[in-house]
Amino acid sequence: MDEFSFINAIKPNTYNQPALIKGIGDDAAVFRSTSDIVTTVDTFVEDIHFSLETMAPFHIGYRILAANISDLAAMGAEPAFYLVSMCIPKKWKQSALEEIYQGMHELASMYQMDLIGGDTVSSERLMISITAMGYVPENKARYRSHAEPNDIVFATGTLGDSRAGLEILLQGQECKDKDYYIERHRLPNPRVALASGLCEIDRVALNDISDGISSEANEIAEASNVELTIIEEKIPVSNSFQQFSKEQQYDWKLSGGEDFELLGTVSEVHWPRVQEIAVQTDTPIQQIGYVREAEEPCVLIQTHGETKKLMKSGYTHLK
Amino acid sequence: MDEFSFINAIKPNTYNQPALIKGIGDDAAVFRSTSDIVTTVDTFVEDIHFSLETMAPFHIGYRILAANISDLAAMGAEPAFYLVSMCIPKKWKQSALEEIYQGMHELASMYQMDLIGGDTVSSERLMISITAMGYVPENKARYRSHAEPNDIVFATGTLGDSRAGLEILLQGQECKDKDYYIERHRLPNPRVALASGLCEIDRVALNDISDGISSEANEIAEASNVELTIIEEKIPVSNSFQQFSKEQQYDWKLSGGEDFELLGTVSEVHWPRVQEIAVQTDTPIQQIGYVREAEEPCVLIQTHGETKKLMKSGYTHLK
Repeated sequence: MDEFSFINAIKPNTYNQPALIKGIGDDAAVFRSTSDIVTTVDTFVEDIHFSLETMAPFHIGYRILAANISDLAAMGAEPAFYLVSMCIPKKWKQSALEEIYQGMHELASMYQMDLIGGDTVSSERLMISITAMGYVPENKARYRSHAEPNDIVFATGTLGDSRAGLEILLQGQECKDKDYYIERHRLPNPRVALASGLCEIDRVALNDISDGISSEANEIAEASNVELTIIEEKIPVSNSFQQFSKEQQYDWKLSGGEDFELLGTVSEVHWPRVQEIAVQTDTPIQQIGYVREAEEPCVLIQTHGETKKLMKSGYTHLK
Repeated sequence: MDEFSFINAIKPNTYNQPALIKGIGDDAAVFRSTSDIVTTVDTFVEDIHFSLETMAPFHIGYRILAANISDLAAMGAEPAFYLVSMCIPKKWKQSALEEIYQGMHELASMYQMDLIGGDTVSSERLMISITAMGYVPENKARYRSHAEPNDIVFATGTLGDSRAGLEILLQGQECKDKDYYIERHRLPNPRVALASGLCEIDRVALNDISDGISSEANEIAEASNVELTIIEEKIPVSNSFQQFSKEQQYDWKLSGGEDFELLGTVSEVHWPRVQEIAVQTDTPIQQIGYVREAEEPCVLIQTHGETKKLMKSGYTHLK
């Protein structure tokens, strides 16, 4: 691979963000902001976090950037910039690498996000690390520590779809809505519009569902020092999700992860307004539980009236 | 390695930057800035960019962060934040990894820089990617495209030392000032104080010397569309540098790289003031050449009155 022609191929010709002063081409990029700046980094390794067995290079790029944008959304931020660092094995062709960048670019352009920097080095295994940056209005960053007793707990979209898509790809099995599940796995859409829309609400606790709600709910409970109860029947799933076995449904919706939906809590007073904003931003949303004072922070799951403790791993045990 | 205890070990207990709103512990970090923001990413792979043969883990961390801070300095920026992404092989012990972070922390704390995010994944080979962010006063970012005809060309510090240190470590040879050269290789000091001090000067072109001045000078010439002449005898070197062979001296000072000094150009009118700022910030500085209008951008090197064309690689040929 010719590094020079590769960098020229992936370098943007134009930029979208008005705040950008200097993009790629100097020692560093420069931008200006009157909002608070949110920044996160996520690293992905071939055959650990993604595989050509289940995805084209385009999907790899799309999905990796989606994971980063989802972190920004979970902070209430609008995506603005990204930097990509790649370790590239010799066996990867330039055309396939360019496809990865096209996948990122496809998603980035939905948000007028600009690629403003990066680095490529050689390595045995493909590794991609993305630093994403976004804006949030002053003091409107959404923390997982902001849940309070008597909040309602909500989730967006449907859960478990990404994991279902992965299993379908790995097992090669036929099933209803096969393409839908596969797309949910390969091309997830972070909930940026809702997260931004919520900025008028004073207090919202938010996490994105990257590891499954069992993990995310526990993070909110711990950070906010509250008890969070999830009602299993209320966890939103796709219409044809019941075609999978009971064990799969339970496992995938609680711990499947990578749906990049949002899990949040908000006061009962603001819940009707949150639902309106969800309608305006075309975001399916559902109350799935409630928050209570805790002696020690924990997550409970109620199934047909029976309550168990839900661990980060998705494992449950009697209270 | 226990990931939880590792993250706890490297997570800062306190932060220094007043602009930081949220550090490590949520989906992303948040900060606020009234200055322009400069950001860069640099990736380093074991046995390509660094090796335990020539450095302790502490040096690896220090040097990698120095490379990033040097990029910020080359933009005229004050370092403020960094995020670290690491791919870690099983063979690396937690104590050695913590030492890498201690090396970064040692340098970071000189600038009150805060570690605000990161990611660790497993891999066959150690890979460290750092995203660094800093501030520069509005419209005072320093670009390599800002050189103009009749500027003087200057360099800070002494060049070739880092490469000399590396060779001493690899060959195990005895020589004068051995420890000095080794330290210059392992613990480079980016020229932040000078770069910040220069902010009162309207126009300065700057590059940091990471790949050697033959490469950096060509980047400035191309970006500014000028002809840049370097006078070989004026390139600053350490007192005992002449103990090395003529070929080594020539190669190391022009293409050794990783000295993390600054190469810049400034108008003759401002040169006296630049020298004063250099004295105030305790930065050795030296005029090494001048800028002229170019038919096509290039770098010339003058040795005892003879002028040759200097390529990016350090290779020279007759004009």
